[in-house]
Amino acid sequence: MPRQPDDAYQELVSHLRQTELLSSCSALLGWDEQTYMPPGGAEHRANQLSLLSGMVHERATAPQVGALLDELGGSDLLAFPDSPAAVNVREARRDYSRAVKLPRKLVEELTRVASLAQQQWVAARKRSDFSLFYPWLDKMVALKREVAGAIGYGAGVPYDALLDEFEPGLTSAEVVRLFTPLRDALVELLSAIQGASRRPDRSLITRNYPVDAQRRFSQEAARQIGFNFDDGRLDETAHPFCSGIGPGDTRLTTRYDAHHFSGAFFGTLHESGHGIYDQGLNREAFGLPMGAAVSLGIHESQSRLWENFVGRSLGFWRHFYPGAQAAFPEALGDVSLEAFHGAINVVEPSFIRVEADEATYNLHILLRFELEQALIAGNLAPADVQSAWNETFTRYFGLTPPDDAQGCLQDIHWSCGLVGYFPTYCLGNMYAAQFFVAAQNDLGDLGAQFARGEFAALKHWLNDRIHRRGKQYRAQDLVKVVTGQSLSHTALVQHLRDKYSAIYGL
Amino acid sequence: MPRQPDDAYQELVSHLRQTELLSSCSALLGWDEQTYMPPGGAEHRANQLSLLSGMVHERATAPQVGALLDELGGSDLLAFPDSPAAVNVREARRDYSRAVKLPRKLVEELTRVASLAQQQWVAARKRSDFSLFYPWLDKMVALKREVAGAIGYGAGVPYDALLDEFEPGLTSAEVVRLFTPLRDALVELLSAIQGASRRPDRSLITRNYPVDAQRRFSQEAARQIGFNFDDGRLDETAHPFCSGIGPGDTRLTTRYDAHHFSGAFFGTLHESGHGIYDQGLNREAFGLPMGAAVSLGIHESQSRLWENFVGRSLGFWRHFYPGAQAAFPEALGDVSLEAFHGAINVVEPSFIRVEADEATYNLHILLRFELEQALIAGNLAPADVQSAWNETFTRYFGLTPPDDAQGCLQDIHWSCGLVGYFPTYCLGNMYAAQFFVAAQNDLGDLGAQFARGEFAALKHWLNDRIHRRGKQYRAQDLVKVVTGQSLSHTALVQHLRDKYSAIYGL
Repeated sequence: MPRQPDDAYQELVSHLRQTELLSSCSALLGWDEQTYMPPGGAEHRANQLSLLSGMVHERATAPQVGALLDELGGSDLLAFPDSPAAVNVREARRDYSRAVKLPRKLVEELTRVASLAQQQWVAARKRSDFSLFYPWLDKMVALKREVAGAIGYGAGVPYDALLDEFEPGLTSAEVVRLFTPLRDALVELLSAIQGASRRPDRSLITRNYPVDAQRRFSQEAARQIGFNFDDGRLDETAHPFCSGIGPGDTRLTTRYDAHHFSGAFFGTLHESGHGIYDQGLNREAFGLPMGAAVSLGIHESQSRLWENFVGRSLGFWRHFYPGAQAAFPEALGDVSLEAFHGAINVVEPSFIRVEADEATYNLHILLRFELEQALIAGNLAPADVQSAWNETFTRYFGLTPPDDAQGCLQDIHWSCGLVGYFPTYCLGNMYAAQFFVAAQNDLGDLGAQFARGEFAALKHWLNDRIHRRGKQYRAQDLVKVVTGQSLSHTALVQHLRDKYSAIYGL
Repeated sequence: MPRQPDDAYQELVSHLRQTELLSSCSALLGWDEQTYMPPGGAEHRANQLSLLSGMVHERATAPQVGALLDELGGSDLLAFPDSPAAVNVREARRDYSRAVKLPRKLVEELTRVASLAQQQWVAARKRSDFSLFYPWLDKMVALKREVAGAIGYGAGVPYDALLDEFEPGLTSAEVVRLFTPLRDALVELLSAIQGASRRPDRSLITRNYPVDAQRRFSQEAARQIGFNFDDGRLDETAHPFCSGIGPGDTRLTTRYDAHHFSGAFFGTLHESGHGIYDQGLNREAFGLPMGAAVSLGIHESQSRLWENFVGRSLGFWRHFYPGAQAAFPEALGDVSLEAFHGAINVVEPSFIRVEADEATYNLHILLRFELEQALIAGNLAPADVQSAWNETFTRYFGLTPPDDAQGCLQDIHWSCGLVGYFPTYCLGNMYAAQFFVAAQNDLGDLGAQFARGEFAALKHWLNDRIHRRGKQYRAQDLVKVVTGQSLSHTALVQHLRDKYSAIYGL
């Protein structure tokens, strides 16, 4: 019997699964590097990760994959574009055509440099000294420019080749089109807030919050909103993240500060949102596009949705506040629910992105988007990042970072080679706002559900509409399928206006 | 220019290093499996480890390796048998000839079953129910018999093929020849101890030892004897172990019981001894036989040396006891140094191997050696292990284990496929005794050094004589090179007689 398209498809599926299985070993090594690896292990770890990334790349670019994709060209299997087989082949084709453009040496070098640069970033951030990190940023930017050149790009914008890795199909021109009206609306809203007469007291969240109690309280909240700790865990790292190791193994991290409630708590909810997405993927499709997240922007929509639309809402705290008062009697014993809700929603220019309020957060992203575009275009030298950061920050926020740890060294991303990643955070906020409106329309008064400690309906809605679909739709199409509308800034702006009108009495 | 032997050697070296680098990724995944992996991750982990072991096996058995070894056949590079190149080639040849006998499918299946069986062992041990573990033991024994058949063996003893993996060149006949006089001497010594009129009070070590204080105290002791925490760490697991991930990354584990001082403390010293060996290997030779440990017996000699010859000596406690009294005032405030030293050296039949005293410990090994020989010979069915264990235990110790957790489920080894491994523990005791005598001869009164908190001279002596030599000599030869004599039971028996004569007034 001649070979059937179905055989080619099965062979492709098996190849993709094995590649992802190998790649998931790197994920565990990367997680360990940031959680438990002793400092002396850094060099060996870099060698391990470099070897694995090279092997993964070799598998991803194997001529066999190209041949299978060719063979599947006009197959009936792909007749329905939204069918699992068609989606898997479509995305495999995209990944393959990107991967073959990158020489294995470059991929290995990127991984090796990223692993070492991360260690240097940790050390530099600890001493708040950009000069310790700069040589590594320099290497990394050069490598990412090389990547952009190898991948290729339209419209003369090398940055677009990097952005496309995280948010497939999106260009920086489109990002600018989405971000510009958002920025204008935010500037207007911030101005209104600064002129408001009612002002919540932010100092409530910088009272004494014992770390052990924070650990218990955050973990319990993560559990209640739906993160499954049988299939995951929560650790502590310099920079919080979520890493999906594979089916049944999703790992979150956070960091605690005894004098800052919001950092760890909302950080944990944020990473839990990522984790709930990973745990909601179709396990049977592990290793295939149908079992993978759509894009980083959509991933971020899930984290921001749980962090902000759920976690910073009044309904959520109607349920959790008695427990918070019991856990932190010294800090919260004399604080009303409304005062606490105001405190966790104070809008105020601040230095650290991950601790920023929902409104100014987006400006932190605009700053990074601006700088990394310039870095990749070659208009900003890595050596000048510190001064460029401080100048741009002053322009956006009217403040100058007191040191590098609170300035250009605060984020791990560039050290890991994540350039073109930051815009997805702001996109995530926009997606989240639109999804949340659609969920409310379907599920009724979510605030009332949260107040009763009910989070399952929302979680299942997200599971069904987004998580279980894998990469069936590209991000821009998924938004339309789920919400009936193209992505825009309007739902986010409406959400912020409504929230801050209530809190600030605008 | 024609290709030179040196080129072939460099190619071999590079191949071996890469293979070990890949294998070290499995080491990290294995460590994580036992420390931090969430329960839901077990299946995916088994798949990851199985894939990696298959890839490592494929590299280890690549025809290219055979061709390089052939090419190096009569090369001048190998003129001096103790030279690094000759050693690397000799051991590479041994590893290759073993590896090519094992089909990849079998290697992958072994890894997959080991990973799942370990999880089942943890669950079975928790419930103290052998019936939960038996099906996995059955699978594992069948696989190990298949391995023995594939490797081949002399004298009609399949067990020897397994033993040879851990203690190259040793046969079970030779082990019996070494163990028999040891057993006879131990039986005589135990009888003398049981008739002694002076009896230390063992209950002192089962007083209240708060776990946090144990953690600090054990870790500090590990540090003081020479384990480098910049290049390693200490965690908690169901079964203590040491895992060398690679240069600069050596990981120990232990377990704490608030009512048993010795378990965690001597367990930590034991694993630190393994760790000090790993940290003492030649980093530049990572991935090569010259940068690897000689055998498991020699590895165990290092752990037992630090645990028993150092850690249970009076000199050691002259230095550490004041700190112990400060750390555990409730338990030790009213206890003299001599009484404490007696308590940690009580000789008494007991159920748990890793908590046994130095004398009866060896009987625990004899029992396991007997059972696993029978399992592999096909004279004992895995289903009958529980009853065979209990009967044999009664014969050796005059006691019957009250449950499986304290009986046949106490050790992780068989679940991981470590069959033929147990004898190396008893060999380790014998090697340790002989090394310690040699070290005393070279370094003078070690007890007096320990009493001053000085452990560096002994550590450096071990680094020079044993660790830095890698696999330059096979175990039996190394003993002769280092101590001037073949391995025998005499140094161990002398050590035990001296120690217990003092404590029990024999």
